[in-house]
Amino acid sequence: MTLQETLDMIKPADAEARERAVKRWDAIAKPLHSLGKLEDAVAKIAGIQGSDRVKLDKKALVIMCADNGVVEEGVTQTDNSVTAIVAENFLDKKTSVAVMADKLGVDLFAYDVGMVRDTRVEKRKVACGTKNLAKGPAMTRDECIKTIETGINIVFELKEKGYDIITTGEMGIGNTTTSSAVGAVLTGQPVEIMTGKGSGLTDEALIHKKQVIRDSITLNKPDRNDPIDVLAKEGGFDICGLTGVFLGGAACGIPVVIDGFISSVAALAAYKLSPKAIDYILPSHVSKEPAGKFMLDALGLNQFLTCDMCLGEGTGAVMLMPIIECALEVYNRMSTFEDIEIDAYVPL
Amino acid sequence: MTLQETLDMIKPADAEARERAVKRWDAIAKPLHSLGKLEDAVAKIAGIQGSDRVKLDKKALVIMCADNGVVEEGVTQTDNSVTAIVAENFLDKKTSVAVMADKLGVDLFAYDVGMVRDTRVEKRKVACGTKNLAKGPAMTRDECIKTIETGINIVFELKEKGYDIITTGEMGIGNTTTSSAVGAVLTGQPVEIMTGKGSGLTDEALIHKKQVIRDSITLNKPDRNDPIDVLAKEGGFDICGLTGVFLGGAACGIPVVIDGFISSVAALAAYKLSPKAIDYILPSHVSKEPAGKFMLDALGLNQFLTCDMCLGEGTGAVMLMPIIECALEVYNRMSTFEDIEIDAYVPL
Repeated sequence: MTLQETLDMIKPADAEARERAVKRWDAIAKPLHSLGKLEDAVAKIAGIQGSDRVKLDKKALVIMCADNGVVEEGVTQTDNSVTAIVAENFLDKKTSVAVMADKLGVDLFAYDVGMVRDTRVEKRKVACGTKNLAKGPAMTRDECIKTIETGINIVFELKEKGYDIITTGEMGIGNTTTSSAVGAVLTGQPVEIMTGKGSGLTDEALIHKKQVIRDSITLNKPDRNDPIDVLAKEGGFDICGLTGVFLGGAACGIPVVIDGFISSVAALAAYKLSPKAIDYILPSHVSKEPAGKFMLDALGLNQFLTCDMCLGEGTGAVMLMPIIECALEVYNRMSTFEDIEIDAYVPL
Repeated sequence: MTLQETLDMIKPADAEARERAVKRWDAIAKPLHSLGKLEDAVAKIAGIQGSDRVKLDKKALVIMCADNGVVEEGVTQTDNSVTAIVAENFLDKKTSVAVMADKLGVDLFAYDVGMVRDTRVEKRKVACGTKNLAKGPAMTRDECIKTIETGINIVFELKEKGYDIITTGEMGIGNTTTSSAVGAVLTGQPVEIMTGKGSGLTDEALIHKKQVIRDSITLNKPDRNDPIDVLAKEGGFDICGLTGVFLGGAACGIPVVIDGFISSVAALAAYKLSPKAIDYILPSHVSKEPAGKFMLDALGLNQFLTCDMCLGEGTGAVMLMPIIECALEVYNRMSTFEDIEIDAYVPL
């Protein structure tokens, strides 16, 4: 699938299926809309899946792993070697999200979409890490599109394997720097408020990180109205891959769940490339990174979890699963007012 | 156990066990405090259980069911008969929370602490419903204390049975009215902002509900500094029973999870009776009822779930379980930095 073919495939979600799900919720014996956003989420998934018989049996976590040339500017506490170690730890169930996914019955798929080192992680890369965005574009336009297409094709493969929902995650030292850069350009918000300490920086190092981002934007002059240009010049391969996952989900009718800041930047890029894609995107938590809330606002989405998390890897996205499944259990199993002989609550 | 004996038993949680849990979190291979409030919650439970080997194997949901005399004032959309029907539906797994608890492995215990009708629900009541608080005190001081003691003793029974955590729920038509009254008096907030539409009211009926509450407070003159007086005059047996559950948890070292508005009013009453009890109380979600946020603020707590729920029954409280268990899985199973040969993130 090419990017253009994918964009052409994206249609609005099925409004009738969504409406039937809303009607089902309203018939269930409980105060109207009393499960709030969880009812909306189940109805949204009905629209995405094109059926009010919502199915979340097979759940996937897609983790995009990539390195960022910008780490040579000293914007992070650790270096590229950590990307490779953690990426392999996904396979060995030795990371936070791997432990959670295992517990929650979510199947983990990690991809090397641009790590410097070769590892046991499945390789789908066009380059071994981006170039340093402080000195020029992080990647070429062609590399950017190819990596988006990698993300798209991964979703089509998972659809083929019968997955009902995809959660997103990432690993890449330096990717809060690239995310802040891309997020600031795409939203038009100042770098100042879009940039946080990531996995841990001193106050001084944070000031430096912001300066690196500002200088890079001045140097590379990304075109805000051309998301590919923004991703190519300021992004990372992980963000590009996830952008493809959001677009692929929209193209083939699978709900895709945002994790934290980095993942939401990819979602925003997908939304800018195809506004209809928003119908297929679900939020999960709001990141503790200051920009987390701005990104959700830019997407018009509102989180379910407010836990001050900022771990990445997909940890927030997978945690949405038991919550949505809990609501879905009520949706599927609960009696209607008719069943239990109580008059329905009257819509006001 | 009497109320006084219970209050005498409540000690601060084990600060050393909590600190050991914090240290364990800091050693785990992930950015420091990156699971945010979930790390805090696991550490808090360590303090409550007096051990950094946190255990959440046996989970209970305690649902207090009771009727409220104030329903004769027309402050609700349905009547007492619904309390009895829903209460029996708990036993038959035909309510939202029963379906959820079943899915989540939480054992449901429903108690009749004051329903008008006798049902199959276990009876622990001192009266068949409260009196109409618009015409005088809802119950006597003695009835209030006895019902708090019922809640306390239920927790001691569950402790005996090996439960590690208790989630709270309630069923009682009219209980957002009693909760708004008790909450307004205990917090000193105006009735206006502490009162919402509950399970559904017209704008006109909401104005009436607020007037009934204001008039009742004027008539009964509850003493804000005497929580028992406030509960007896403006409360319901469900709120009293849950107040006992929070106190019982604090006395015997079991974490007790707040659900929504009604449950948080009981938590605040417990806190006012014994400030140390707050060490043993965990929040879950923030209710869509406008007062939900005020109640959490009054308790100095901050929610994990922001789903606009307002169903009651314990639905928000049980949903916290898979989230905390997910964090606990990381706490128990994750490698430390030493195990995986990465340098620890440096605390800043």
